[in-house]
Amino acid sequence: MIYFDNAATTYPKPESVYQAVNRCMRDYCANPGRSGHKLSMEAGRRVLETRELLAELFGAKKSENIIFTLNATDALNTAIKGVVKEGDHIITTSMEHNSVLRPLKQLENLGVETTIIKCNMLGELNLIDLQTSIKENTRVIITTHASNVTGVLMPIKEIGEIAKQNKLLYIIDSAQTAGTYKIDVSDINVDILTFTGHKGLMGPQGVGGFYVKEGVNLRQLREGGTGSMSESLMQPEMLPDKYESGTPNTPGIAGLAAGIKFIKEIGIDKIRGHEEEITSYFLKQVSEIDDIIIYGPNDIKKQAPVVSLNIKNRASSEVSFLLDNQYDIATRPGLHCAPLAHQTIGSGQQGAVRFSFGYFNTWDEIDKAIIALKSIAKEECF
Amino acid sequence: MIYFDNAATTYPKPESVYQAVNRCMRDYCANPGRSGHKLSMEAGRRVLETRELLAELFGAKKSENIIFTLNATDALNTAIKGVVKEGDHIITTSMEHNSVLRPLKQLENLGVETTIIKCNMLGELNLIDLQTSIKENTRVIITTHASNVTGVLMPIKEIGEIAKQNKLLYIIDSAQTAGTYKIDVSDINVDILTFTGHKGLMGPQGVGGFYVKEGVNLRQLREGGTGSMSESLMQPEMLPDKYESGTPNTPGIAGLAAGIKFIKEIGIDKIRGHEEEITSYFLKQVSEIDDIIIYGPNDIKKQAPVVSLNIKNRASSEVSFLLDNQYDIATRPGLHCAPLAHQTIGSGQQGAVRFSFGYFNTWDEIDKAIIALKSIAKEECF
Repeated sequence: MIYFDNAATTYPKPESVYQAVNRCMRDYCANPGRSGHKLSMEAGRRVLETRELLAELFGAKKSENIIFTLNATDALNTAIKGVVKEGDHIITTSMEHNSVLRPLKQLENLGVETTIIKCNMLGELNLIDLQTSIKENTRVIITTHASNVTGVLMPIKEIGEIAKQNKLLYIIDSAQTAGTYKIDVSDINVDILTFTGHKGLMGPQGVGGFYVKEGVNLRQLREGGTGSMSESLMQPEMLPDKYESGTPNTPGIAGLAAGIKFIKEIGIDKIRGHEEEITSYFLKQVSEIDDIIIYGPNDIKKQAPVVSLNIKNRASSEVSFLLDNQYDIATRPGLHCAPLAHQTIGSGQQGAVRFSFGYFNTWDEIDKAIIALKSIAKEECF
Repeated sequence: MIYFDNAATTYPKPESVYQAVNRCMRDYCANPGRSGHKLSMEAGRRVLETRELLAELFGAKKSENIIFTLNATDALNTAIKGVVKEGDHIITTSMEHNSVLRPLKQLENLGVETTIIKCNMLGELNLIDLQTSIKENTRVIITTHASNVTGVLMPIKEIGEIAKQNKLLYIIDSAQTAGTYKIDVSDINVDILTFTGHKGLMGPQGVGGFYVKEGVNLRQLREGGTGSMSESLMQPEMLPDKYESGTPNTPGIAGLAAGIKFIKEIGIDKIRGHEEEITSYFLKQVSEIDDIIIYGPNDIKKQAPVVSLNIKNRASSEVSFLLDNQYDIATRPGLHCAPLAHQTIGSGQQGAVRFSFGYFNTWDEIDKAIIALKSIAKEECF
């Protein structure tokens, strides 16, 4: 199987990730932070280690500002619902995933106002549109760092500046970039940075999270046991406990540490370099195939290693099926949980076939995909 | 290390659980239900298999009524916040965990009324107190199945009948019993049964969930990508998608399947039988040690295999520390995230040393704990 579905989850993971999860489960997987015995303390230390690795990776001063959640969606729901109240206005873009759009639509029922700025056909945001969308009751800007459909990169530094000038909170969804692109919260004006562990960070599924800037106070999504201030029936205000109730996914968090260590060892630039090179080559080769429509910038400096395409008007699900069934190539067709992004780029009805590349993809695999696409493009539609 | 902290998380797990998690991560851990390719389909099948195993275990007719969450706390927050609105009244007991009490206290801020029925010194609920607590605006009863402090079992069948007669919803927290006690939702009148995967069900940490009765409609806690109805900006109403947004913990869910298969293979009665026997023996032996105060029923037919005790007025943390440090025995001191339960049984200031037993604990380990307790009880307090 040639795996080009890394925007959904990276696969495979580094060997050290499998081993870290296995070792955690076998050797010390008591409940972290709940008891004082040796195993519980060891589990707690490993959770803290991962928090510290993430803080270092994102340039956060304190590891307590890194919060673990179930996944990026859980983090986004906590971030979005935690900061707004009835009457507030939130601005976002048409390139967002349903993990941003659906919570916003839900909030509309509760009296929150939203503006979804339509990006251009390449998925690019016009910053003037952003500036003119700001109103008196605007409280939050939320954007992805890179679209999961076209890979288009948003100008997060510039958006952060606009947010700062207008005293707005800025939430960034880094699901498609954390671990592959440098994101430094001391350099970008970001209040909440949500991430997922199982994509670029190379950890197992079941762990996401967010960085929250010191002084930014959210309402928590959940209350419950934190292992701290047990005598109180109120959720503790201290971080990270306030936002982390119940037993965490300790094996997943231990695996994530191994993923981040792998990234540090190889180097984030080298990882992105490889992904950029193979994506660039893929884009160039595929651009030359008749009848193939490529969406998005078609420029690796403007996009993450994600390429959505169609073969004329053939159903994306059919092309994806052929790639899987006849060529053993895994891609993802359809709308990728981002319907407005597809409307923006003009594939709202057809969806698209998404190729998303990862560090473990090889040149040979890319060549095989190009050959497969050439062959499918020549076939008659059936 | 002798591990008696199974009420926090069972440890070790069956060998098959470690292997299932490892195999999942290595062999097929694509994103379940998101793409149509072989790996994604295989991941989806494994998630469905676990759902079906849980449905069978709990006597649910349809697996779609089993929902996966991060942990039991996440499930309880979804259940509690999903059913009540301003002005509603919820009844619970003083033996609950903070995963029930803290969300209720939070809801009080939003105009929800709560009644916490004080149980007796053994932690037992008086059903007459429950009946007299019901008011015109009562909407929900929520109780644990077994206390995480004393193990005391709640009369869930009788409570379910009272709920039914009064047209109330009944939510059961089975964190301490699922996998060890038979819970049949076709036999008990329960609307939502929350569970955790990493205790009696012997799965890894990072997976909890709930059963929701057909026709009981909750507001979801989160919205986001579900891999279904991607074209819609509204959360789908179909189950289980409505309550499951974002990438699930596929390795954890695969591990949970192995845990449940292990339980089916050994037999739930045999598992509980062993735990009851060793707990009963422990209770009997420890009762004979001077200066030891045992909380709760001290009767294995009335409690899960959890025993909280103190040595006179010595700090529970000190005793637990000695057990760990000098005897390599892991217990959990303090309030166990259940402050009202400790107030109820009279240990609100002191906390208690909790021994919680699991299927893998041996008679020899119990004997060693008894010897250790005898020795510590003889020492002078320092």
